[in-house]
Amino acid sequence: MNRILVSEVGPRDGLQSIARAMPTEAKHRWIRALAQAGLREIEVASFVPAKLMPQMADAADVVREAVKIPGLTVLALAPNLRGARDAIAAGAHKVTLPVSASEAHSRANVRMGVDEAVSQVGLVCEFRAGLPSDRRPGVEVGISTAFGCTLQGEVDEDRVFEIALALAKLGVDTIGLSDTVGYANPAQVKRMFARLARELGDRAGGAHLHNTRGQGLANVVAALDAGVTTFDASLGGIGGCPHAPGASGNLVTEDLVFLLESMGFETGIDLDRLLVARALLAESLPGEPLYGHLPDAGLPKTFHRATERP
Amino acid sequence: MNRILVSEVGPRDGLQSIARAMPTEAKHRWIRALAQAGLREIEVASFVPAKLMPQMADAADVVREAVKIPGLTVLALAPNLRGARDAIAAGAHKVTLPVSASEAHSRANVRMGVDEAVSQVGLVCEFRAGLPSDRRPGVEVGISTAFGCTLQGEVDEDRVFEIALALAKLGVDTIGLSDTVGYANPAQVKRMFARLARELGDRAGGAHLHNTRGQGLANVVAALDAGVTTFDASLGGIGGCPHAPGASGNLVTEDLVFLLESMGFETGIDLDRLLVARALLAESLPGEPLYGHLPDAGLPKTFHRATERP
Repeated sequence: MNRILVSEVGPRDGLQSIARAMPTEAKHRWIRALAQAGLREIEVASFVPAKLMPQMADAADVVREAVKIPGLTVLALAPNLRGARDAIAAGAHKVTLPVSASEAHSRANVRMGVDEAVSQVGLVCEFRAGLPSDRRPGVEVGISTAFGCTLQGEVDEDRVFEIALALAKLGVDTIGLSDTVGYANPAQVKRMFARLARELGDRAGGAHLHNTRGQGLANVVAALDAGVTTFDASLGGIGGCPHAPGASGNLVTEDLVFLLESMGFETGIDLDRLLVARALLAESLPGEPLYGHLPDAGLPKTFHRATERP
Repeated sequence: MNRILVSEVGPRDGLQSIARAMPTEAKHRWIRALAQAGLREIEVASFVPAKLMPQMADAADVVREAVKIPGLTVLALAPNLRGARDAIAAGAHKVTLPVSASEAHSRANVRMGVDEAVSQVGLVCEFRAGLPSDRRPGVEVGISTAFGCTLQGEVDEDRVFEIALALAKLGVDTIGLSDTVGYANPAQVKRMFARLARELGDRAGGAHLHNTRGQGLANVVAALDAGVTTFDASLGGIGGCPHAPGASGNLVTEDLVFLLESMGFETGIDLDRLLVARALLAESLPGEPLYGHLPDAGLPKTFHRATERP
């Protein structure tokens, strides 16, 4: 119960927010460095048309290379059945599909209404069911704008769980909640994730939290209290949501891992090696701003990894 | 139980960390703006020799002006009896005295060992007892380096509570805990403040937390869980501890108030007016870096103050 999964989203969520493309070879090296630091799950690419997002044009190559890394779960984002088929063909272990709780954000982000986005997920689940049983990938959804939306404002909480239950009924393995625009507060996070666990049981998924207003790690503490065991984060804090005005700032993987290990949660991640992966990221995207406090301040003299406590 | 006191330390803790002195008139204006934003307690000055800290040479003037503000509790820091007498003579409502849990930090910070610093607090309590009963100020201590020390490393938890109990016995009104160097994690914060409440009852004081490793607001959530109702913070996040190498970054008042009000805690503080006080600070110290996420990102569309919830 003491083990937390940090799911790295930098190679997908981070890189898609940066206009220039990271060369494919650099992506391979960076993903290997992340895995060597102990990350066990990485969202490596997005299967969207290269015209819309040229940074992700090499998605299939990136997945094919990443699945060679022993012990790594390779995630790919796909906005629809077509993208999901391509991701699965490339060998992705899990496909993650975007569904918004806000109509306005859904249309801005995936050019579909919420119900249509849910239907796309249904098509992916059906497609998966038709595959040989040893070749069926995981399917997960993080419900975007679950805590509010910059376009629409308030998002009805009951609506969020109506969508979550509909997705569970379609066969989605895990359904998490995303604070896409950095509106969430710890009281809300605790309440929503506690309800998610009550309503979905073992299909309750992880937390995708942002640090837009400096509240990212505060929300992590609240989510831990509600029993959440999977957290998305991005190395150097790159990325955010390009279709949510004013939103920026994924959780910084370095700061998140420091927080969790300090609290006694095992992440399996070595912070020194994580800083090696950060250096590689900085080298591959010279001049790109990276975030995070730990890389500047360094580890406390009193720091021990959860597995190495005195 | 829903009310939280945010104690602003910028005019003391913040300004003493900045080499140039803010002009006295500018301090008066800034403190008034802070009070107008709804801050009910402000630590306005430090009574140390002007030779050591020229930024605080006007301490008595600043206190005399601040106590004219209706409803405001005016705090002053004093390292010893002499400073405390001057602070009380100027009219400070409360005197706060520094006591470290770390021997090394104590000697670096106040040039006394821990036991000697505790004795100084005893002298102040005796002096207070000799004053007419209507002119006795509050006396409080925040125990520095309670969560670890950059100089000494680990700080023994039992030692922290031994010091806290000794201070309570001397008559100190409230004894809080300070993460002077940004080493604390939420699990430790919750454990330590829960024990503080158990051991000290209504003499258990507030939390002085730092954001050195990005963990400041995460530690606030943990402290709230342990029942803490007073938090120090600094407008624009200025200040830290000059005698703790590598330590920087008080909690940013703006981000803290946003977090608390979003969670439904009443602070009495108006965020728009707080940003006016921030603008005044920026004007008075041109070029000085100010911190905080909320001032950049702005309030969410969904934000309501605790007292104005739908």
